Amino acid sequence: MRTTIKDVANKTGYSITTVSLVLNDRNARISEKAKQKILECARSLDYRPNRLAIGIVTKRSRVLGLIIPDNTNQFFSSLSKAIEGAARKAGYLLIYGNTDNHAGRDIDYLQMYEDYHVDGIIYTKSSSDKTSDIEEVLRFLRQTSIPVVALDRPIADIGVMTVRLDHRAGGMIASRHLLERGHRRIGCLTGPLDLASSNDRLLGYQDALAEFGIPYDPALVVEGTYQAGREKDAVDRFLSQKATAVFSFNDIMALGLYRELQERGMRIPEDLSVVGFDNIQEGEVIRPALTSVSQPVEKMGAAAVRVLLEQIEGAKDKPDSGGSLFEFQPKLVVRNSVKTIVSEGVLK
Amino acid sequence: MRTTIKDVANKTGYSITTVSLVLNDRNARISEKAKQKILECARSLDYRPNRLAIGIVTKRSRVLGLIIPDNTNQFFSSLSKAIEGAARKAGYLLIYGNTDNHAGRDIDYLQMYEDYHVDGIIYTKSSSDKTSDIEEVLRFLRQTSIPVVALDRPIADIGVMTVRLDHRAGGMIASRHLLERGHRRIGCLTGPLDLASSNDRLLGYQDALAEFGIPYDPALVVEGTYQAGREKDAVDRFLSQKATAVFSFNDIMALGLYRELQERGMRIPEDLSVVGFDNIQEGEVIRPALTSVSQPVEKMGAAAVRVLLEQIEGAKDKPDSGGSLFEFQPKLVVRNSVKTIVSEGVLK
Repeated sequence: MRTTIKDVANKTGYSITTVSLVLNDRNARISEKAKQKILECARSLDYRPNRLAIGIVTKRSRVLGLIIPDNTNQFFSSLSKAIEGAARKAGYLLIYGNTDNHAGRDIDYLQMYEDYHVDGIIYTKSSSDKTSDIEEVLRFLRQTSIPVVALDRPIADIGVMTVRLDHRAGGMIASRHLLERGHRRIGCLTGPLDLASSNDRLLGYQDALAEFGIPYDPALVVEGTYQAGREKDAVDRFLSQKATAVFSFNDIMALGLYRELQERGMRIPEDLSVVGFDNIQEGEVIRPALTSVSQPVEKMGAAAVRVLLEQIEGAKDKPDSGGSLFEFQPKLVVRNSVKTIVSEGVLK
Repeated sequence: MRTTIKDVANKTGYSITTVSLVLNDRNARISEKAKQKILECARSLDYRPNRLAIGIVTKRSRVLGLIIPDNTNQFFSSLSKAIEGAARKAGYLLIYGNTDNHAGRDIDYLQMYEDYHVDGIIYTKSSSDKTSDIEEVLRFLRQTSIPVVALDRPIADIGVMTVRLDHRAGGMIASRHLLERGHRRIGCLTGPLDLASSNDRLLGYQDALAEFGIPYDPALVVEGTYQAGREKDAVDRFLSQKATAVFSFNDIMALGLYRELQERGMRIPEDLSVVGFDNIQEGEVIRPALTSVSQPVEKMGAAAVRVLLEQIEGAKDKPDSGGSLFEFQPKLVVRNSVKTIVSEGVLK
């Protein structure tokens, strides 16, 4: 059985109150000799404090809460591990929950975490759902006294700091790479367009087109889900629109494109070039190896924890970060999924 | 701000004690009228109980703890999601930690979880580390009053129930598949051989060889790490030993073999057949699609939570499960990474 304060009291002969004061470091009026005796005894009995009880007194649970859409999506499983590691190093445990992008579950977790008195919440909101659920989330965030940091997906009009990639820059470098290799008809397989990440990547795509003086053609854009499954329709569209390349807004969908093209007997990059996003492990292993935009997941996870701890430890009142962004720069990892097109007068 | 018992007391005019008794369902001697008034007021103010305080009283935190080696390994990220989902459905939150297979970190998490009064722990031990760390884990498990279920990796001599795959059957069906296709020199790229999963898969491999009357040749066995990185040496060995097929004890290492063979200009399955284990998503997408042994991850996660809750809710005293196993049966998913060899007199 676990050692309790009572055990230390019995063994040393001091009262439970005295032992409790010493072990909780509130020992103003206790003699040095008594302190030493109690601390030594506690050590020898392997006494460890009851964190629940301490949490009640200090109003700190030393637990952070994480809400993500899906731990089987490699981007989020890597982020989650980075966050858990950073939390541990700071002396915090991590509770986590998967919403599968149901906003109704967002509010469930937020309320449970609050009931549980987590010290702070790192929150990736669901991609889309009923307006009533989203409003409930906003209402919660307005009234809670728990610091919240938005991860990857900003929350509008609520003064919550966001840690994420500069997705527009990501969209830009992916598209520019294709343009530099001579592609002019570039299909886009986006994520859900109600997500800022997806919208911003599309803006980056448009920025790159403008840089090369190429008009934006909405017929080349297919809205995806960030999950595999819609590649058939997308490839139909890209081929009918005479695209020579596709910018897929994540690698999971890019791998879906690989499968779909292989089933049609088409080759990457000879028949269609592909650039992905997230730089997941399998992109390096499949053939042709996938060119992809890399997010600095370790750094982003550590930053989310750091920003959150600053809010937790810095101020009694929840600070208003003014909804500011903490943005990280993407990097293009060039592999073999893009063909260089040389046609007269086009090569830059 | 969040509604407290005091707010409900102020609004209804009842004392804090009365309100507390009603809201904590200990309202034996309170009039029905007062009860209704307090409950209605609590509802209208959106009162929710403080779970930390309830935890102190009930000695239940309604939190489970999970310890896994690595959330970026798809087998564990899927298991973790399944466990979190099953815990949520049962009304429990999930704390989780990554050990990266350092047993020193196992004991850190176990102690933190105990300090935090989690109601139960689902625990995948580290694959290997210093003996002193492992002894500390065993000492912890012997003295703790918290129910623990071992996940995937049994813990010897400690009376802890294990939920896992029947790994020996998994090794058997993978190897038998290769034998049925005519392979006689089958290389094994194992996991760490101090793990039961890896040892049991090797026993299954030996079972299958015995079934086909083929002597076991240790020169065909290379000990791996369950991680990519050692494929070069392994392929050297398999080729020098004239293997026509390799059974890789997980898909991550199988994908490493794909890369290594492609770099040597060799083809799968023409030059070497490969069977993997875990059936991760990318195995379906790479070419040739990978034949692999599938673990029922959803069912295993749900079972781990169910078995743990039975211990938590079933008994005050920690029951001794006698170290029994709760084993699930594997399934072979046949794709295109194995060649059929027909040679005289060998085909069965």
